[in-house]
Amino acid sequence: MTVLVVGSVALDTVETPFGHAERVIGGSAIYFASAACQLAPVQLVGVVGDDYPMEQLAPLRQRGVDLTGLEQARGDSFHWRGRYRHDLNSAETLETNLGVLATFRPKIPPSFRRAPFVFLANIDPRLQLEVLEQVEAPRLVACDTMNFWISSRRDELLALLGRVDVLTLNDGEARQLTEQTSLVHAGRWLLERGPQHVIIKKGEHGALMFGRESMFYVPAYPLESVFDPTGAGDAFAGGFMGYLARTGDLSEANLRRAVVVGSAMGSFAVERFSNERLLALTTSEIDRRIAGFRELVAVDGGPPLAPGDSPPTLSPAHEQRPTARSR
Amino acid sequence: MTVLVVGSVALDTVETPFGHAERVIGGSAIYFASAACQLAPVQLVGVVGDDYPMEQLAPLRQRGVDLTGLEQARGDSFHWRGRYRHDLNSAETLETNLGVLATFRPKIPPSFRRAPFVFLANIDPRLQLEVLEQVEAPRLVACDTMNFWISSRRDELLALLGRVDVLTLNDGEARQLTEQTSLVHAGRWLLERGPQHVIIKKGEHGALMFGRESMFYVPAYPLESVFDPTGAGDAFAGGFMGYLARTGDLSEANLRRAVVVGSAMGSFAVERFSNERLLALTTSEIDRRIAGFRELVAVDGGPPLAPGDSPPTLSPAHEQRPTARSR
Repeated sequence: MTVLVVGSVALDTVETPFGHAERVIGGSAIYFASAACQLAPVQLVGVVGDDYPMEQLAPLRQRGVDLTGLEQARGDSFHWRGRYRHDLNSAETLETNLGVLATFRPKIPPSFRRAPFVFLANIDPRLQLEVLEQVEAPRLVACDTMNFWISSRRDELLALLGRVDVLTLNDGEARQLTEQTSLVHAGRWLLERGPQHVIIKKGEHGALMFGRESMFYVPAYPLESVFDPTGAGDAFAGGFMGYLARTGDLSEANLRRAVVVGSAMGSFAVERFSNERLLALTTSEIDRRIAGFRELVAVDGGPPLAPGDSPPTLSPAHEQRPTARSR
Repeated sequence: MTVLVVGSVALDTVETPFGHAERVIGGSAIYFASAACQLAPVQLVGVVGDDYPMEQLAPLRQRGVDLTGLEQARGDSFHWRGRYRHDLNSAETLETNLGVLATFRPKIPPSFRRAPFVFLANIDPRLQLEVLEQVEAPRLVACDTMNFWISSRRDELLALLGRVDVLTLNDGEARQLTEQTSLVHAGRWLLERGPQHVIIKKGEHGALMFGRESMFYVPAYPLESVFDPTGAGDAFAGGFMGYLARTGDLSEANLRRAVVVGSAMGSFAVERFSNERLLALTTSEIDRRIAGFRELVAVDGGPPLAPGDSPPTLSPAHEQRPTARSR
């Protein structure tokens, strides 16, 4: 099944303690698509300027990303210039030039409107809502957001929450939006506004998925070195949505597997600049990383401490409860 | 089997966003013993002044903590005054009065010298080394340390690392001691200095155990509210060592279970001031929290992505390789 993503397509200039990359392809939709296309067909909607190196998108097209919805407009492409210091968990934005993104209005091509899986990557919540007006009965809609929209478009963002199945955002954004210190309280606050699941991304500390009656935690894969954190969250979302689209299974157990696949894709994204590492992946490499994640948290039961208690074994099978809403 | 702990016995004055506690019992050995005694008999060695409220130790004695090695000296008890602001991950020390701890030389009572499990809680590494001169052929020795000793007693601390089986320390201390940014590199650096296992504690982000050929990650239990983080690391160590002493099993699989039990005890410690919550625990409550940890990370296999790959299922049984050294 196909995944539709609407988001930014950018040129990034990035400095990290390990190197420098100049005007490389990036943006939330590109990172998402680069991860998701390893798992399912992807349809991408976005905008670039007339300065964009379109030939660098050829590898994405070869991997099953349909770029029919990528508009090329007159003007500059969205350009982000940022720096990571030794604390690779937070980017410092040095310059943002919105370019053609400033006047972007997403137009979903007719051939994309019945995509069963829809990801509204980080753009203006008003545009995210506009996308929802153009799609027809998706099985699952997820969205991401950022601090800028939380402060400037709070009402529109809350309206959007009432219309999505899954929200992804990072821990700082969750605290900002909910005004709760405890992530458990923040998760509950967000679930009350609409989504069936909320995934709070904690960078090098992993990700926490809240459902109506469950919490699921997956660590970040402990890497020897993180080369460039840009795009890790979007690659996570791409792995998560791509896996759901590939399997078509919206049970709690499969959502958990999808979070692990998302974390694997996020861990690959940070090993190189831009989407280089993601596009060079094989499915066997992804399988090995997923196995590494499982090994990292693997622990078996052992006998209970109290004589009368049942053994605290791993519960292998979660309820096969479907979580997407019917519309 | 018995666990011997040598460490500080203190009075703590603590301010958190949620309340204030004045001269309550604390210190690394007290937090350790309060957790470990739920699982195994504990022998405690430390020192207090003539101002210490000895009657408040009665509940520990009732729970199987042998206080024969607790010296009462003339002078003030060690007193720590600290504050946690909204970021509960780091304490701000307002005042430290070492009191009788300044001239403490641990004397291990003859009846304690054959303890099979030994925990050298956070005190001067020279004293930790003195303890090792007094014990006879322990099955497993673990130690903790802190930033102060890393900068002031680096050589002695490195000598100690050559003589312990397990090191526990927090992420900031691991980076300080090893001068490595990546925790994977820090873990390897520390393993090369002697310990068979290194456990890096990351506060609200969980704990990471490094072995010669494995990594194991356990998240912190996502609590609705953290009341007072003081002692969480020592309660973790108490749960870890207490579980090993209770089971007598030093296989990799059992060390992983012990890390989960340690995390459970750390999560209880922060729910109240001092050791209140730890001493009120039942083993059934501990079993339920352990089951909660397992549920939090539970994910099953799912089919591999690549057709030829073997399914990435959880590996239930780790090698039963003993990890403590014979001496």
